[in-house]
Amino acid sequence: MAAAAAEGQEVPNKRVILKRYVTGHLTEDDMEVVTGAARLAVPPGSAAVVLKNLYVSCDPYMRGRMTKHETPSYVPDFVPGEVLVNFGVSKVVASGHPDFKVGDLVWGITGWEEYTLIPNPESLFKINHPELPLSYYTGVLGMTGLAAWAGFFDVGKPKKGDYVFVSAASGAVGQIVGQLAKLKGCYVVGSAGSDEKVNLLKTKFGFDDAFNYKEAQDLNAALKRCFPEGIDIYFENVGGPTLDAVLLNMRSHGRIPACGMISQYNREQPEGMRNLSSVVAKRLRIEGFMVSDYIGEYRRFEEEMVGYLKEGKVSYVEDVAEGLEKAPAALIGLYSGRNVGKQVVAVARE
Amino acid sequence: MAAAAAEGQEVPNKRVILKRYVTGHLTEDDMEVVTGAARLAVPPGSAAVVLKNLYVSCDPYMRGRMTKHETPSYVPDFVPGEVLVNFGVSKVVASGHPDFKVGDLVWGITGWEEYTLIPNPESLFKINHPELPLSYYTGVLGMTGLAAWAGFFDVGKPKKGDYVFVSAASGAVGQIVGQLAKLKGCYVVGSAGSDEKVNLLKTKFGFDDAFNYKEAQDLNAALKRCFPEGIDIYFENVGGPTLDAVLLNMRSHGRIPACGMISQYNREQPEGMRNLSSVVAKRLRIEGFMVSDYIGEYRRFEEEMVGYLKEGKVSYVEDVAEGLEKAPAALIGLYSGRNVGKQVVAVARE
Repeated sequence: MAAAAAEGQEVPNKRVILKRYVTGHLTEDDMEVVTGAARLAVPPGSAAVVLKNLYVSCDPYMRGRMTKHETPSYVPDFVPGEVLVNFGVSKVVASGHPDFKVGDLVWGITGWEEYTLIPNPESLFKINHPELPLSYYTGVLGMTGLAAWAGFFDVGKPKKGDYVFVSAASGAVGQIVGQLAKLKGCYVVGSAGSDEKVNLLKTKFGFDDAFNYKEAQDLNAALKRCFPEGIDIYFENVGGPTLDAVLLNMRSHGRIPACGMISQYNREQPEGMRNLSSVVAKRLRIEGFMVSDYIGEYRRFEEEMVGYLKEGKVSYVEDVAEGLEKAPAALIGLYSGRNVGKQVVAVARE
Repeated sequence: MAAAAAEGQEVPNKRVILKRYVTGHLTEDDMEVVTGAARLAVPPGSAAVVLKNLYVSCDPYMRGRMTKHETPSYVPDFVPGEVLVNFGVSKVVASGHPDFKVGDLVWGITGWEEYTLIPNPESLFKINHPELPLSYYTGVLGMTGLAAWAGFFDVGKPKKGDYVFVSAASGAVGQIVGQLAKLKGCYVVGSAGSDEKVNLLKTKFGFDDAFNYKEAQDLNAALKRCFPEGIDIYFENVGGPTLDAVLLNMRSHGRIPACGMISQYNREQPEGMRNLSSVVAKRLRIEGFMVSDYIGEYRRFEEEMVGYLKEGKVSYVEDVAEGLEKAPAALIGLYSGRNVGKQVVAVARE
């Protein structure tokens, strides 16, 4: 059992690598699960740590890193033959760094593999609340939660009574945004891609209303029905026809924090948006943001969100795939909405 | 000669009316120049004024008011059979209002006609600097100038050294934005629709570079050539393919103050925008604004701009059509870029 591996030992290391640059739809053939070896020791004199990975996060933006960019994107492209990396929750199993000791629980950027050597561990966060499920640090207490919180409050600038629409609303970010909006005193409607998810929004997450966008014949009509007064804040996760219909239904001075546009990530040719002139006519603000710009706020966010979770004010649903073998399919499932809630991969149970 | 008409007299009143609601391209047949009558007196006991109109402004947004809207737009639709209204410069020829006396020069909303009765003259501005050309109050010293100033500074949030791109750059708003950006210490490039206009940008208005978008085979390539480092601020006047190409060339945290999207106003089906996902990837802010929200800043703006004009720091080019008979063609010319500089109609020389 890997958990019992001693420091210094060489152990097998299962890993998910990118096989080739991807164009169009991501498929399982684009990734490969291979087994290498890891040494549970840091190079002599280095300040590195070796992590045993417990959970890794599946996030839509990873698709972009699998395309070869002519001009550099905001995150480096993955490299064929190399392990995928993303946020995860891990335990320190070897350390050359004075701030980290063996046994510490941390979260941060790690590999889609069993063990990862982190040369510069300063970017890892210690886990302050191990009394909550550790996997939460890939989501509601990690970058996902911070993205929801920063995007909604800092970019969305909500006021009590605002009409708020959230797409991909049962997803990792959407479910948190919707609940924060309710806590703020907003009227909140979400869209999702199945009746099961719509039900989750109305019951578990307390949305005022929700609809299944896959069954809406006319998104504009669905939005008009849900928002006869119009929308003040649209928290954008999907892009494409949803955004285009939303533009027709925004109120004056409405805000659109843009967190992601998942509907477009697998398309070679993005869909055309025809209603941009609403931006002028209604003085809208569409603003993209990245959670990495809010890292400095993390501790403040963490304490606030831990409070909500412990008081039962925020519920959280995750969809956990067991084992790295399931990781490629779990990632691919995001783009068709197969997951219900935040998609996580359990690499090892602690 | 109308200028000599005495108070109380009834005089002929030439007017431009909307003949019918417009769909698609605006044509001269959609408007009509008719002659009615005006009495140069205010109703007994009223606080109205009667204006003799000197100049009226042709502005792209007027096209939107000629379409019948199912749901009300941000400005009321024009009504077939009624006179067009917009900002203009006028002289008071009759007054029932204590703040206005006969002979006062004012600017504000008036009719496309020789004489207009204004029931609530409180919204009119007195002209503080008649030593400058009066027509300037339809443009660089009126709503156009205020739009350029507010949109560039308040929405665009420029910093010294920013890379600034302006479309419709020799137009009413664009020429002012470009010059304000140069005064702020930015690198400024403009696009316009003829070599004559491009020349004007580089010589008269001091843009660092300019190109003719009608001759650019590939807007993306033209922008890459002008902005190898990318664009920090795009002042949006045109929408459509220009905006789509700009999105590919924005830098991180770039800002797009959206003042208008003239390329789309005559289209029944707007063109599709495919590069919106740059908003997320580059944390862009696209923000529509309306000059009417900045009316409270007008006096501060006016003094600043009068200073620039008198010191020769801002040049201003207008295209003056003589007489109301020419007004319909002048308005239509905006949408094909026939005008060079701000399009004004001289209704009467003072």
